[in-house]
Amino acid sequence: MGGPGVGGTRPGGTGTGAAGAGDDGREAGPPALVDHHCHSVVDGELDDEELAGLLTESDRPPAPGTSPLDSALGLAVRRWCPPVLGLPAHAPAADYLARRRELGAPEATRRLLAAAGLDSCLVDTGLTAAAGRPLLPLPEFAALTGADVREVVRLEALAEALDPAAAAWPGAVRAAVGAAVEGGAAALKSVLAYRHGLDVPAERPTDREVVAAAGARLRSGGGRLTDPVLLRHLLWSAVDACAGRGLPIQLHTGFGDPDLALHRADPALLAGFVRAAEPSGVPLVLLHGYPYHRQAAWLAQAFPQVYADLGLTASYVGPRVAAVLGEMLELAPFGKLLFSTDGYGLPELHLVGAAQFRHGLGALLASWRADGACSAGDVTRIARLLSAGNARRLYRL
Amino acid sequence: MGGPGVGGTRPGGTGTGAAGAGDDGREAGPPALVDHHCHSVVDGELDDEELAGLLTESDRPPAPGTSPLDSALGLAVRRWCPPVLGLPAHAPAADYLARRRELGAPEATRRLLAAAGLDSCLVDTGLTAAAGRPLLPLPEFAALTGADVREVVRLEALAEALDPAAAAWPGAVRAAVGAAVEGGAAALKSVLAYRHGLDVPAERPTDREVVAAAGARLRSGGGRLTDPVLLRHLLWSAVDACAGRGLPIQLHTGFGDPDLALHRADPALLAGFVRAAEPSGVPLVLLHGYPYHRQAAWLAQAFPQVYADLGLTASYVGPRVAAVLGEMLELAPFGKLLFSTDGYGLPELHLVGAAQFRHGLGALLASWRADGACSAGDVTRIARLLSAGNARRLYRL
Amino acid sequence: MGGPGVGGTRPGGTGTGAAGAGDDGREAGPPALVDHHCHSVVDGELDDEELAGLLTESDRPPAPGTSPLDSALGLAVRRWCPPVLGLPAHAPAADYLARRRELGAPEATRRLLAAAGLDSCLVDTGLTAAAGRPLLPLPEFAALTGADVREVVRLEALAEALDPAAAAWPGAVRAAVGAAVEGGAAALKSVLAYRHGLDVPAERPTDREVVAAAGARLRSGGGRLTDPVLLRHLLWSAVDACAGRGLPIQLHTGFGDPDLALHRADPALLAGFVRAAEPSGVPLVLLHGYPYHRQAAWLAQAFPQVYADLGLTASYVGPRVAAVLGEMLELAPFGKLLFSTDGYGLPELHLVGAAQFRHGLGALLASWRADGACSAGDVTRIARLLSAGNARRLYRL
Repeated sequence: MGGPGVGGTRPGGTGTGAAGAGDDGREAGPPALVDHHCHSVVDGELDDEELAGLLTESDRPPAPGTSPLDSALGLAVRRWCPPVLGLPAHAPAADYLARRRELGAPEATRRLLAAAGLDSCLVDTGLTAAAGRPLLPLPEFAALTGADVREVVRLEALAEALDPAAAAWPGAVRAAVGAAVEGGAAALKSVLAYRHGLDVPAERPTDREVVAAAGARLRSGGGRLTDPVLLRHLLWSAVDACAGRGLPIQLHTGFGDPDLALHRADPALLAGFVRAAEPSGVPLVLLHGYPYHRQAAWLAQAFPQVYADLGLTASYVGPRVAAVLGEMLELAPFGKLLFSTDGYGLPELHLVGAAQFRHGLGALLASWRADGACSAGDVTRIARLLSAGNARRLYRL
Repeated sequence: MGGPGVGGTRPGGTGTGAAGAGDDGREAGPPALVDHHCHSVVDGELDDEELAGLLTESDRPPAPGTSPLDSALGLAVRRWCPPVLGLPAHAPAADYLARRRELGAPEATRRLLAAAGLDSCLVDTGLTAAAGRPLLPLPEFAALTGADVREVVRLEALAEALDPAAAAWPGAVRAAVGAAVEGGAAALKSVLAYRHGLDVPAERPTDREVVAAAGARLRSGGGRLTDPVLLRHLLWSAVDACAGRGLPIQLHTGFGDPDLALHRADPALLAGFVRAAEPSGVPLVLLHGYPYHRQAAWLAQAFPQVYADLGLTASYVGPRVAAVLGEMLELAPFGKLLFSTDGYGLPELHLVGAAQFRHGLGALLASWRADGACSAGDVTRIARLLSAGNARRLYRL
Repeated sequence: MGGPGVGGTRPGGTGTGAAGAGDDGREAGPPALVDHHCHSVVDGELDDEELAGLLTESDRPPAPGTSPLDSALGLAVRRWCPPVLGLPAHAPAADYLARRRELGAPEATRRLLAAAGLDSCLVDTGLTAAAGRPLLPLPEFAALTGADVREVVRLEALAEALDPAAAAWPGAVRAAVGAAVEGGAAALKSVLAYRHGLDVPAERPTDREVVAAAGARLRSGGGRLTDPVLLRHLLWSAVDACAGRGLPIQLHTGFGDPDLALHRADPALLAGFVRAAEPSGVPLVLLHGYPYHRQAAWLAQAFPQVYADLGLTASYVGPRVAAVLGEMLELAPFGKLLFSTDGYGLPELHLVGAAQFRHGLGALLASWRADGACSAGDVTRIARLLSAGNARRLYRL
């Protein structure tokens, strides 16, 4: 796993977008977007099946007679992507795939990422491949998106890359997490929800417990980090490393791939940990959340250090994005909700994430305004906070 | 419990509906409907109280001053049924009930079932009475609906009809389930959610465990099958019997009558079983799901062999059907969602289920189209898949 | 804690509202409102920070750069309150706060409470202060609202005010609860959800268990009542005291302040208790429920003695009130859903609660009518039931 080090580099050319995106009310046009959680994209051509396989949370082949493209997400891809490749919106999937091949993956990727209009991207580097192909290194991804790019370090990948003796585990993990923070990471990220579930004891485990768990893991051959004691130690090491620096920790919550026990990814289960970590002042950012996004929103209201996003949900729910975003804004304070695409592997997902968010938020706020629920100034201000302002404040961009 | 044997018989006269319902794009008019999960209707007159009692999931008398007809479902009944009996839509409940009595139950039943416009019905025969009256045998139900009718065999009813010694239980259950499959059942159905909850261990119990549980059940007098070991053995016997035949197993999930522990009917709790049964290839169809329908939809996306329906939810939520259907289509692939009425006892419920689904899906897709989220061709194609195409493919109708 | 004793007193002057609010169809204008669950308001000036602190469920200072006023609830306050103080709707928060100071708290309170147009209020007196200031006594609150005011007695506050020896605990609690009922309480209220969670055994604890738990509590210094055995005994004492009188018990469910374990406040967890208490006939009113309001609605359909409200949810979700109310009416029979503001501390919350409910229910029913889902008569009838009719029947007002 490469160490963090891309922080702050930014290809030129889109600086005006950033300059106009403040909360000062002087901007015309749509607000800039800070994508506070995404991944890089695949380098090279994918066949149609591989491409479709990146448009579903399933890692299995589709059921006979069905296609992942025949879904709410598929509609969103066919809405936003064909025009960027020179086809009409809603072009049939087969036409789109043919046109993509005709242009070639590099040209399609270039067009799709540029069209996303992302001003800054915080990229989780914990996944290094998609559909068996390597993801582009961050400088290349930065050049293609035209965005400022900074790294988010995935905790479990960091720990799995270590190979300490059991007795050295607690210190080695703490040192590695500390180094990631020192190295310029924009945030740390936990996938505890995938590895065990969010239903863990709130308290920090003792080093003695950690050493015992590390020993048991080594005796069973190491590999994927799933022991709840080690996962909690890792998370608390992150809290310690971030404390005093204001560096946020992102946590996956809600739906994901078939590995997940969905009901154990309910962010409400994190409340004990949130309370225990509150004195550290470390911001905790609950990613995705769906279908428990209302629970995530409650946590964001109840606890000052909790933030939330809708993440890949905005893309997956396709035509329903405004309704789901509305659900999240029922309790989430407007200063606490962030934008992200969670784009991974396919550049389509970065464009779709951005377009869905812009369209959904625009439609939602327009409906509020039409109902008399807010003023025109509120619409502008809320859109800027969610699109970029909150992320800039939180990550000090 | 009658054995299966109605499979494939079909009263003539509505064949054109079936012929026009394919996915070939040549059909005008509304798509045909395959009701993949319903029950038969009561034979004979019901008094007003008995009739109202079939319009609620409660089996108790209503609270003082309230009526089950004064509900979202009641509004749907008063919207769709009065015109079929010669009254205006939204006629007061009392007028409707008086008109129904005037026509007589047989004539009202005939009109209501015919108006539902069901092309095929898969009928769960595990319940044989409603409001204390016997349900019509399948051939008569088939004649009244004008639909192809096939049987769905309810596992728990099958097992409760057996009377083996404890030592013979595992084999007797396997034989009975095998016979149901051989006899032409279109699917098997489990009500594990009612009998214990979906929070059971994923693994297949051993025959030794099953014999012990059967012995304990016999010693306590038999009766209703609620022991989780016996229920799991029954479900796994169904998986074994269906494997290699492509025969689906339907599972009740979500809301139902007061017997239910609602939170233990969350389909997310089934994920372990879904994973364990995946190698068998047996399709699992999650019925109803509400208010956990988004969880059911996630399972349908994550696992190739999982399908889902909205079932009786579409009727119960009345004016909200388009919104709830929209929630389900956020994650459920369009090839995985099915239509059913879950009509039971009252022919009103078959008509309302069909009309609600047609209206709700039509309104939802029209709103997507108006928002620019899909093309006119998408609207037609999605409607056909959900209305009939998916069920025909899954049940090989 | 003051004993109940305000029952039935009503300042004159708004009687026509009450007279016109029956279910007889003769009323013009908006239906009267019975607020079946609220609190009193603060006496005296609050600074801006204290005021904002009462517009969130959080008891912490807001995160840097954010404000509780920048939320769905904040939008609702800025929609409904400024016109009452002589400013345009959607006036900036700073302008509103300045105008409020200019008028002075007594005048602002008078205007805001009068504008709420509440016909009757059932006031939970278990909280006696907000933002560290005492709440107005009920007669003064009654005079300001112009409403009939009756008291709801909070069980945990009642028990905590007692100081019996452990052996005397069971009888002392029963006597205190009995006295509250005799003294004219309109209802009793439980905050079990806050003190332990709703996941308690359904059964009534024995006196022996209660004495042991009371002894343990005394040995650990008394204070806040959180022992589940004592909480269950208290709740069952309430059931016993209310049985035969038709007096309802209100239970907090769903979201609230950061103390709460949200997932343990899911009303579905109450089903066992609901079944166990059913023979008593005592009505159980599930307050708020969100984001588990669909579960509360199911309980209200399944069990005759269960009622539900949306409570403070209607205020907190701001522009989304019609959608959330729609979700609740999917399963809740129209005779089972009640109105409340849950206004607490700030008179803004009483006005916002009333205005949000009126607006949201109006918008929802108008959309149903426009969709052809119900008749104009249905709209009027449903609005009257939810606004006042159901509460009058249930609380015998």
